[in-house]
Amino acid sequence: MSSARAGDDPATGDPRPLSASDVRGRGFSSRAALSVMEGWIDAAILPLPPLAVPLAAIAATLAEGPVLAEPVTAPGDWPPADRAARDGVAVASSDTLGAGSSNPVPLPGAVTVAAGEPMPPGTDAILPVECIQADGPFVEALGSAAPGDGVERRGEGLRAGTVLLKAGHPLRPQDLGLFAALGIDVLCVGARPRVRVVLAGGPRSGPETLGAMLTALVTRDGGVVELVGPLPADRAALAAAYAAPGADLLISAGRTGVGEDDVAPLALADAGTLALHGVALRPGDSAALGTAGGVPAVLLPGEPMACLTAYELLAGRALRRLAGRDPVLPHPAVPAVTVRKLVSEIGCTELYRVRRTADGLVEPVASPHRPGLAGAVLADGFVLIPAESEGVPAGATVTLRCFDGTSL
Amino acid sequence: MSSARAGDDPATGDPRPLSASDVRGRGFSSRAALSVMEGWIDAAILPLPPLAVPLAAIAATLAEGPVLAEPVTAPGDWPPADRAARDGVAVASSDTLGAGSSNPVPLPGAVTVAAGEPMPPGTDAILPVECIQADGPFVEALGSAAPGDGVERRGEGLRAGTVLLKAGHPLRPQDLGLFAALGIDVLCVGARPRVRVVLAGGPRSGPETLGAMLTALVTRDGGVVELVGPLPADRAALAAAYAAPGADLLISAGRTGVGEDDVAPLALADAGTLALHGVALRPGDSAALGTAGGVPAVLLPGEPMACLTAYELLAGRALRRLAGRDPVLPHPAVPAVTVRKLVSEIGCTELYRVRRTADGLVEPVASPHRPGLAGAVLADGFVLIPAESEGVPAGATVTLRCFDGTSL
Repeated sequence: MSSARAGDDPATGDPRPLSASDVRGRGFSSRAALSVMEGWIDAAILPLPPLAVPLAAIAATLAEGPVLAEPVTAPGDWPPADRAARDGVAVASSDTLGAGSSNPVPLPGAVTVAAGEPMPPGTDAILPVECIQADGPFVEALGSAAPGDGVERRGEGLRAGTVLLKAGHPLRPQDLGLFAALGIDVLCVGARPRVRVVLAGGPRSGPETLGAMLTALVTRDGGVVELVGPLPADRAALAAAYAAPGADLLISAGRTGVGEDDVAPLALADAGTLALHGVALRPGDSAALGTAGGVPAVLLPGEPMACLTAYELLAGRALRRLAGRDPVLPHPAVPAVTVRKLVSEIGCTELYRVRRTADGLVEPVASPHRPGLAGAVLADGFVLIPAESEGVPAGATVTLRCFDGTSL
Repeated sequence: MSSARAGDDPATGDPRPLSASDVRGRGFSSRAALSVMEGWIDAAILPLPPLAVPLAAIAATLAEGPVLAEPVTAPGDWPPADRAARDGVAVASSDTLGAGSSNPVPLPGAVTVAAGEPMPPGTDAILPVECIQADGPFVEALGSAAPGDGVERRGEGLRAGTVLLKAGHPLRPQDLGLFAALGIDVLCVGARPRVRVVLAGGPRSGPETLGAMLTALVTRDGGVVELVGPLPADRAALAAAYAAPGADLLISAGRTGVGEDDVAPLALADAGTLALHGVALRPGDSAALGTAGGVPAVLLPGEPMACLTAYELLAGRALRRLAGRDPVLPHPAVPAVTVRKLVSEIGCTELYRVRRTADGLVEPVASPHRPGLAGAVLADGFVLIPAESEGVPAGATVTLRCFDGTSL
């Protein structure tokens, strides 16, 4: 807190030259459209080289959402030969004609098989054991079978060359099961980018409490977190942390605003480049993009709700691109009708936290202006009002982006 | 493969007494309704004691879906005192009356504050820096402020005692962020049950390929996997693996059918109790429930699609109960219209794998009779036809359960 002009040197009070990118004490002369920020990210960031990972390792971390880096096609017909689809007795169906519970028909050549076993020569159907009467080696049919009953034909499940899954597909348990059955032991999956998360702190509460949330978000989007800080609001210390080697993406939270100790953008300029500072996004309008030590960098505001919003729309997009994932928001999106009007400033993308009502509609929990995470905690999801819209009236259909799948 | 009666001793060919629960070579005389199996699980299984886990540890594994074991209420008002909601200059709003860009008004007592800082005594509004003209210590307002402008009031975000989240709530990134801001460093979350997954193999392909899929499923539902096997289809070896200490839940895959080497149910009876064998569920009808070494046990068929289905409807329910989660299916569920008729046997719950069509409908990929995971891999989700239904006609609205949130 100080009554001095915010751009002055806080130690001496002397005016010092302000860089063109220094908004401290002056405010933003303009803010980039969200689409401009997204365009910068998309142009600057390509996926990292994919990884070859054993199936068992993928299985243990499947919850983190690994995606295929290459399409997978069936290496051969599946099953590779006709086989029993159920336990029973393999028969020539013509041998069972007319069989019934009151008309047992002898089956001298009957062979017991289990589901998955190949069909013995000369057989074309499986009689379930319930339709068999056996006494030692003497077996009788108590029912008839049509050709192919209980048989899984070669290639019936899958033809060689069928494209099973496309590149970018988020893997599911059954995918791993099929790959194992097909003998595919190693998969080519999207990279796990190393993400340095710097908490740019200071004397006040805020960024230093954001480590857990950002760790969870980065992990969700496929990154491996290196958490640094909280560091003091010191330009040189932040620049050193930003430029240090060993990361594929830098995310910093805090010190992006117009206060005198908001030195994160200046530190980023020192560590690499400050490409864009300020975005027409509410909350989150002091976010910045650039590079640090040769890797992409996203600066997030320290106010927790602004941090969350800018993470989701900017940092998460950058990370998802690096990881070879679909860069769009990962939240399940469904249409919903809003109970109330959602007003929004033209030229600014605004995020409303909303909850579902008892009658299946959605209502805002907190306006885009309201700081703090309490609104997001009480919400089921969010609605984005695009920059070109001045909002929607009550009763309008909007896109609800759910915080999780249980909110549908 | 053998032409001997399947209940005989495979080594000697001599008949031996069959236990009442032995369906080998005879088939199931009846199968339990799915609701009976679910009822058994719900009656037999209570949640394990919850765990106190530091926020940072939860953050790193949030993708695995930890749930709150106790409700969380706000420990105090948030923010705890009036504070700045944005960077700017704290003023007494009455001092700014009439100020404008062509009518600067001196603010002798103006104090620069950053978002999150407490309001200085005697001030009731924050002027954004864009509305301030400063020259050294001389500050002028270029705009007026109303009382409360830019101020976040005590308790505005959250009132002390507000129930933030209920027991059973799956935690999300913003929940961790709010807890950190409120000083809640340790959370009481659902247990992570120790799940022994036994692959009951044999000479044929099948169960030995199921380890990766089951690991992924168990991890998704909050369990920690101990993978055992594949073991041979040996009753004593399986019973020993089932009864060994150190697990909270036993899941075994394979050897549950009516073939002669389907000894898993007998091994379960030896290791504890075989409560129910056979379920009116397709695929998955040879699943069994019981106890082994004092803990609940679920036997899954070895046919991969039957295994997946019985896991989702039985083993997963047991695990989710132990973990303190909602026991119902975890897949996002949305209404959808089916392109084709889905036929189903009365008395049997049947699972259709379905995919979305270009026009937003769903169509079956594979009938409940079709074995193999290829259908599940090509599907976006599944539709369950309940036991009391003989199916639904084309054009009917069904509940689509999505394999993941991206399929909505």
